[in-house]
Amino acid sequence: MPMITGRSIIAGKHVPKNAEHGTFRAFDPARGVEIERDFQPAGDAEVDAAAVAAWSAFAPFRALEPGRRAALLEDIAARLSALGQELVDVCSAETGLTTTRIISERERAVGVFRMFAREVRDGSWCRACIESGDSSRKPTPRPDLRRMLRPLGPVAVFGASNFPLAYSTAGGDTASALAAGCPVVVKGHPLHPGTGELVANAIAEAIAEAGLHAGTFSFLHSGGPREREIGARLVKNPCIQAVGFTGSLAGGTAIAEMGRDRPSPIPVYAEMGSTNPVFVLPDAAETKGQAIAERLVASVTNACGQMCTCPGLIFAIKSPRLEPFERTLIDGIDRVGAQVMLSPAILDRYERGLEQSREIEGVEQRAGSLGKRASVGDGPRPVKGVAAVLRTTASVFLKHPVLREEIFGPSTILVICANENELKQCASSIVGSLTGSIFATPYDGALAGQMQSILETRVGRLVYNGVPTGVEVNAAMVHGGPFPATTAPHTTAQGVLAMERWCRIICYQNTPDALLPPELRDANPLGIERMIDGVRTSQAFSRKTRAIEQ
Amino acid sequence: MPMITGRSIIAGKHVPKNAEHGTFRAFDPARGVEIERDFQPAGDAEVDAAAVAAWSAFAPFRALEPGRRAALLEDIAARLSALGQELVDVCSAETGLTTTRIISERERAVGVFRMFAREVRDGSWCRACIESGDSSRKPTPRPDLRRMLRPLGPVAVFGASNFPLAYSTAGGDTASALAAGCPVVVKGHPLHPGTGELVANAIAEAIAEAGLHAGTFSFLHSGGPREREIGARLVKNPCIQAVGFTGSLAGGTAIAEMGRDRPSPIPVYAEMGSTNPVFVLPDAAETKGQAIAERLVASVTNACGQMCTCPGLIFAIKSPRLEPFERTLIDGIDRVGAQVMLSPAILDRYERGLEQSREIEGVEQRAGSLGKRASVGDGPRPVKGVAAVLRTTASVFLKHPVLREEIFGPSTILVICANENELKQCASSIVGSLTGSIFATPYDGALAGQMQSILETRVGRLVYNGVPTGVEVNAAMVHGGPFPATTAPHTTAQGVLAMERWCRIICYQNTPDALLPPELRDANPLGIERMIDGVRTSQAFSRKTRAIEQ
Repeated sequence: MPMITGRSIIAGKHVPKNAEHGTFRAFDPARGVEIERDFQPAGDAEVDAAAVAAWSAFAPFRALEPGRRAALLEDIAARLSALGQELVDVCSAETGLTTTRIISERERAVGVFRMFAREVRDGSWCRACIESGDSSRKPTPRPDLRRMLRPLGPVAVFGASNFPLAYSTAGGDTASALAAGCPVVVKGHPLHPGTGELVANAIAEAIAEAGLHAGTFSFLHSGGPREREIGARLVKNPCIQAVGFTGSLAGGTAIAEMGRDRPSPIPVYAEMGSTNPVFVLPDAAETKGQAIAERLVASVTNACGQMCTCPGLIFAIKSPRLEPFERTLIDGIDRVGAQVMLSPAILDRYERGLEQSREIEGVEQRAGSLGKRASVGDGPRPVKGVAAVLRTTASVFLKHPVLREEIFGPSTILVICANENELKQCASSIVGSLTGSIFATPYDGALAGQMQSILETRVGRLVYNGVPTGVEVNAAMVHGGPFPATTAPHTTAQGVLAMERWCRIICYQNTPDALLPPELRDANPLGIERMIDGVRTSQAFSRKTRAIEQ
Repeated sequence: MPMITGRSIIAGKHVPKNAEHGTFRAFDPARGVEIERDFQPAGDAEVDAAAVAAWSAFAPFRALEPGRRAALLEDIAARLSALGQELVDVCSAETGLTTTRIISERERAVGVFRMFAREVRDGSWCRACIESGDSSRKPTPRPDLRRMLRPLGPVAVFGASNFPLAYSTAGGDTASALAAGCPVVVKGHPLHPGTGELVANAIAEAIAEAGLHAGTFSFLHSGGPREREIGARLVKNPCIQAVGFTGSLAGGTAIAEMGRDRPSPIPVYAEMGSTNPVFVLPDAAETKGQAIAERLVASVTNACGQMCTCPGLIFAIKSPRLEPFERTLIDGIDRVGAQVMLSPAILDRYERGLEQSREIEGVEQRAGSLGKRASVGDGPRPVKGVAAVLRTTASVFLKHPVLREEIFGPSTILVICANENELKQCASSIVGSLTGSIFATPYDGALAGQMQSILETRVGRLVYNGVPTGVEVNAAMVHGGPFPATTAPHTTAQGVLAMERWCRIICYQNTPDALLPPELRDANPLGIERMIDGVRTSQAFSRKTRAIEQ
């Protein structure tokens, strides 16, 4: 079992001990104390070395036979799965998340690596397409054109605090980038550095075992006063060709700006805040209100609300028959009470966010005891956030844009609309979100379709009669949405299409077979599915125009 | 045959006459005189009206049966094709392009609309994917998930001066946006307003004939001092959801910034400058140098070099046997002499660009008579640019980043490298470009592959033993590349994938059949190819999990 050294892993090796930049520590939010293990933030030279090593690894990694790339992903999956009690203990201490949650999150990460391994083995993800040439065409011969997705180059990954396994060091960004053929440099998350290092070790070992260039993966410890500098230096390094980020709106937009302002701009795929609005239509609210409210309570408070798909806004139409729904929601959330949150800063932002909304005239608090804010630094005590419901009307909601912003934590705002028209106006006012949910029965008639039509222009995933939490990982999943949910609304951070973020389409014109990537060669040596002259086939291609230009 | 009124077409109607913003005129560069026809630049209220009309048209247009959308595209193609001598005369006067070129460009635009019509009819472009649910899965049921590409909303199109038909009012951006289900507002190009209006009329008529919402297409005349304001107001209008731009680096980056700085940022797909480097490897240069040089002369001077794929940089390795190549290139370009350019401003920028490069120590002029710059405004005389070759060494090239910038016009810079290593260094120094070409013979051995491997990270299309001009339009074509070639290196402005720029992937979770787009319904009423549980099929889908959540 690997030890936690507290030092970054660059191209397969832990960096030497170096006191120059001091150390930082993780914090155990359940106990309210620092964890006594020192981590050494990466120095500038180390950041550069990781990026340069990744660039050196790029040519061999992109030329690697897909079968070997798939085997690497499978081996990483196996090694993650084998990280046993040590990982669970370290991760639980660093995040306050439950053991059950950590184990299921690890299995989720394992599942993601296995899914991408299947895609890489199958090979058709790269969208290979051949249009044959015609040397006899007049007035000019038609060239032989072939295109496919090709990897961009080294990817920098910034993981999230709230998913230390599935959206961090070995999260979907790392898995999809490696699958696409891009080396990865992870900027470790300061809230779970031990977890990050254990996971990074597993990946580095898999790369060594496969005999690949060690620069294919590096992990930089990052925390303390140097944290921002490490991230910025990494994004600005010319070897880095794309960035994956999961976290706050402020962090994501800052990094997206850095990516744009480079002499050679690069894409930044940032997944940021989301309110995940839920619309409970009248008949659903009246006939199934209690059951719906119970599901919403669980969804809002799951993992103390620290989910990017936490339903932060719930809309319903005023009615005397709404009472059971409302009471169940409020009582349910009230009963949940206080739970451990990830860090004092996250608790603080949560409470400030609630306070800011609560101070608006016409917004009332209906569950949670918000009077008493925890004061950080009062000695060791658990970092706990109290689940809360705020309640307001559509007219107040529409007047105050701040109510459309995410409050990260176990709270939701119930917005009561006077009528269908107000419900639609509220939906139209929503900013980009990962999800939008509609609860309806057949008796809600055309309204469900109308709501869906509005929401479709604002969210990445439309959920019908369900809660937004619980992101299934498969080919059809979309985890994305318009700004501010992400900086790249045409993409998804989950599902097989996530690989395409790390690629460009490249076209080869009249290129000799030997110079083509195997996916585009005449004989189709990998046996993948390709589109040839408009027909999808796994057959070989016989070039009619070998004579042209060769 | 429609008349040119000089007034914008908003939602199917020419706007009333209005003297408020004055008028502007086009310029006949072949004669060197203004064309006596007044055009009325769009007012603010007109810009807003076009955007709002497009938004109103969006819901019905996106719900339109694909067969009817395909028929619209085919009808537009037919109407463009039917624009006869009047279009040719007007376009020729406004651009100085030859009749042959204008006719072939019109047929190219027609071909693009027909290609997208086929794609829309076929239907599988939308990447429909279904992963079936499983209500019995433990611990949580697996939801029914379906995803596909869905249109973003109204698209603003900014056409290019150099392709008044194929990259302007009815260019690839308009065709692909309409194909995707997005209404379009075109900001007319000030250099060919009459051409733009004739083409816009044809599109508006097709929309009226099909009985569609008139807001599906609008055309705004734009020129004179208001030009920038019209463009900026359009991009900032909240109804506009994406922008397509073809033109200069300065224009494209300014509009991309506007798109980002909106309260709700939108994607801007800008295709900008490109140097299209050509690498002539030693054996090719020595054994086929003359033939290659002849092809390069034609490619550099085609349409007076006013092509986004004009080869602006040519690299070869110093050798006594390079002489025939060099002489043929220089003499050939010298013989081309002066040709009409699109406008005085474009000629001026061309000559300034050449001057700037020529002033660098170590850069010498080898063809073209650059001493005499035309002075604009000296009374009616043709706007003519003289074809030119500059020559320098790799060491000078590598020292001066300005030599990596596009000079729009009939010139190229021949860069002589001392050895293979310098050739590779030059390739590594190239900034993002639409294309990169390699001339090689089998005797050039491994060098061709090495050059390709370097270029692959910098260009969108790799051409082997061919010139970059001549963009074939089919499914395999890629017309894109890293910045500064485009602002969106993951996309292509040509080929069927161009439609995807105007879409987002949207996922529907547990959604009842009636609320799904037809592409995702159980019965597959459109008979399109879909990916169902990992298998590609055109069959219907039988939902195993109807019981879940409904």
